[in-house]
Amino acid sequence: MNIVLLSGGSGKRLWPLSNDIRSKQFIKIFKKEDGSYESMVQRVYRQICKADKDANVTIATSKTQVSAIHNQLGDSVGISVEPCRRDTFPAIALVSAYLHDVQGIAEEESVVVCPVDPYVNDDYFQKLVELSERAASSEANLVLMGIEPTYPSEKYGYVIPESSAEVSEVSSFKEKPDAKTAEEYIAQGALWNGGVFAYKLKYVLDKAHELIDFMDYQDLFSKYDTLTKISFDYAVVEKEDNIEVMRFNGQWKDLGTWNTLTEAMEESCVGEAMMNEKCGNVHIINELNVPVLAMGLHDVVISASPEGILVSDKEQSSYIKPFVDRIDQQIMFAEKSWGSFRVLDVEEESMTIKVTLNPGHQMNYHSHKNRDEVWTVIAGKGHTIVDGMEQEVSAGDVITMEAGCRHTIIAETELKLIEVQLGKEISVHDKQKYPLE
Amino acid sequence: MNIVLLSGGSGKRLWPLSNDIRSKQFIKIFKKEDGSYESMVQRVYRQICKADKDANVTIATSKTQVSAIHNQLGDSVGISVEPCRRDTFPAIALVSAYLHDVQGIAEEESVVVCPVDPYVNDDYFQKLVELSERAASSEANLVLMGIEPTYPSEKYGYVIPESSAEVSEVSSFKEKPDAKTAEEYIAQGALWNGGVFAYKLKYVLDKAHELIDFMDYQDLFSKYDTLTKISFDYAVVEKEDNIEVMRFNGQWKDLGTWNTLTEAMEESCVGEAMMNEKCGNVHIINELNVPVLAMGLHDVVISASPEGILVSDKEQSSYIKPFVDRIDQQIMFAEKSWGSFRVLDVEEESMTIKVTLNPGHQMNYHSHKNRDEVWTVIAGKGHTIVDGMEQEVSAGDVITMEAGCRHTIIAETELKLIEVQLGKEISVHDKQKYPLE
Repeated sequence: MNIVLLSGGSGKRLWPLSNDIRSKQFIKIFKKEDGSYESMVQRVYRQICKADKDANVTIATSKTQVSAIHNQLGDSVGISVEPCRRDTFPAIALVSAYLHDVQGIAEEESVVVCPVDPYVNDDYFQKLVELSERAASSEANLVLMGIEPTYPSEKYGYVIPESSAEVSEVSSFKEKPDAKTAEEYIAQGALWNGGVFAYKLKYVLDKAHELIDFMDYQDLFSKYDTLTKISFDYAVVEKEDNIEVMRFNGQWKDLGTWNTLTEAMEESCVGEAMMNEKCGNVHIINELNVPVLAMGLHDVVISASPEGILVSDKEQSSYIKPFVDRIDQQIMFAEKSWGSFRVLDVEEESMTIKVTLNPGHQMNYHSHKNRDEVWTVIAGKGHTIVDGMEQEVSAGDVITMEAGCRHTIIAETELKLIEVQLGKEISVHDKQKYPLE
Repeated sequence: MNIVLLSGGSGKRLWPLSNDIRSKQFIKIFKKEDGSYESMVQRVYRQICKADKDANVTIATSKTQVSAIHNQLGDSVGISVEPCRRDTFPAIALVSAYLHDVQGIAEEESVVVCPVDPYVNDDYFQKLVELSERAASSEANLVLMGIEPTYPSEKYGYVIPESSAEVSEVSSFKEKPDAKTAEEYIAQGALWNGGVFAYKLKYVLDKAHELIDFMDYQDLFSKYDTLTKISFDYAVVEKEDNIEVMRFNGQWKDLGTWNTLTEAMEESCVGEAMMNEKCGNVHIINELNVPVLAMGLHDVVISASPEGILVSDKEQSSYIKPFVDRIDQQIMFAEKSWGSFRVLDVEEESMTIKVTLNPGHQMNYHSHKNRDEVWTVIAGKGHTIVDGMEQEVSAGDVITMEAGCRHTIIAETELKLIEVQLGKEISVHDKQKYPLE
């Protein structure tokens, strides 16, 4: 199966674990059998590979997520990078061109497009395999997944099928209704629109050429910022007459708020946390290395990360966004393709960070215009290149770099260092990259 | 007036702001007129100096608090250091010998002993001045402060006076009663025992020699650890017949729990904090440099420090101690006589801390057996002495010190540095001090 995961969103609604550079799908919150934790994207990727070990997985996303994806899924997953955000029709057109022109997928092969963050069981991915097979064999241009509703939700769009068969033609689509209207739809046999589309590659490529003037993937990529923002539902799905829906009646959850996310947690605490016996329905997610103690609380979520601390009534947590919008914050933690960094201290004319490089990985060879840097290696082995000079380093070694000096570090084992940045204008944008000499 | 402040307690009940090395009286939580914050000990000291600008203030405390006292009150305050904890009778005997033998206070002068942490207004300290004068002029051996009760508290001892006069002989003492008994006491005109004693120095010195075999201050100090633990109330006050009580009817609060402490806060937030309009009776004290966001909470205190995070129902917060006892924690922040340090990162074989030295101050000249250190100066000016070699340093300078190497740094202006400690056995106890060469 060719499967495309749409990975979007900056996810302020799960602050302080999600922020401008870390979306909710990268938060490691789900306990695995071995006791470690995985993120939503790791969970979904693992489930896909279990349902179809030969699955060709491609993630359609923005540039800001590429490092985190490589960090969490490794280098074998395909990534179609959107130069900017242009809603789902341009995104699906671009990734379809990527599959055809870059990966060489044949036009007659089917593709399943699915959000990156459904919280579901393995049966959901089995259904995606069936959807893929149906799209390949059916005369229909599009096959959707319709989820059997468990309550008259106002949060989802509805699909009315022609029949109650496993696979049915679509009779009509309905926008998010109020609860009363939702009940009427359900009485008519309506299904939730799960945002999953399966199609033969040719179909979407033809649609793309019909609606956008472009030659091939490279051309589409280069003019991507000129495209109109429009959803795939609006541009394609709702205008298509030859369309089927396949019903799914397993568990399906959208974990978009702290309230719904904590419902999916196996344990009440992740990280260092204690609560007294007077607490009820309390969840603690603590990414800091100091303890959280909760006493006498009810229906509360506590979330602590290097970015900040949220303490919220669970129902109230869905109103978080305007408050987070007010926080103009330094990024305190980030996963990069080579490892991660964490800000330890910020002063007016200095910043101290901890850098962790994964074994075999390295930073870009780069320099800064307006700051000096001092590295103290605290763990691991590797070598530095500073203005072309190579040097082996291990714990205890100190490397000083003046502004303008080109530098990188290559980790042999996992390597950790403390970086002190010194200067009047410290900024993440002050960085020139160079090829290695 | 000669006034002794008894400063005790490790104060786990206000975790994470108080801990083994920072007692509650050092937490800067009370807003001053200039917008900055002061601690309980700073507030009390300021109030004493206002009531009597010539007050001779001596703090009786343990070794662990000396640095914090100098840091917060400067060097002019007297300190009587208890070599170990032996309850209030030995402590008052020791500080009385200190006043006589070290400070040269005459035996006929009066002394007022008072806890370091009452949350009171200026009228309380006016009353202490009156108490001091009364002790000097009265025939009574002891003059106590009796606080007019505002409710039948079960938390305090009671003093029954002979009369309702401003100053009265004491009829009897009562232990902490239940609420019903407290009501009966109050009906009899009982007062709360405020833990304040005034006496002529000779009286307590005589009592001390009567109960303890010692020559002078130095001798008492050297055998302090052999003394029996016994309270001044039990050893002296309750056995004394010639004793008076002076009544006080102003505000008097004991801020021993988060519940009572937050009642005394002028504002609902100290530090970076936001709350939505659905919060009621919520207090946030945030010592971290990232924001705390509270939503939809009621009657809750949130306290965040480098040691941890507490989120507690206010009433429940008084049951915190057993939970904090379970936390076996690295000290993450400490005030020293020369400034302060904060732990930024802890790894198996390294620790990174931020050191701030006050202008004109310096560390001890010292070395470590089992760790190397790297200093990167990030702000300020000063000079280092490393194995006898002196060097001027300022922001950007890096100093590396191998295990065994003697070192110190002297701050000319406020000086900040990042210290990376490297070694297999990093411990605060690994420190040899030397005189400066």
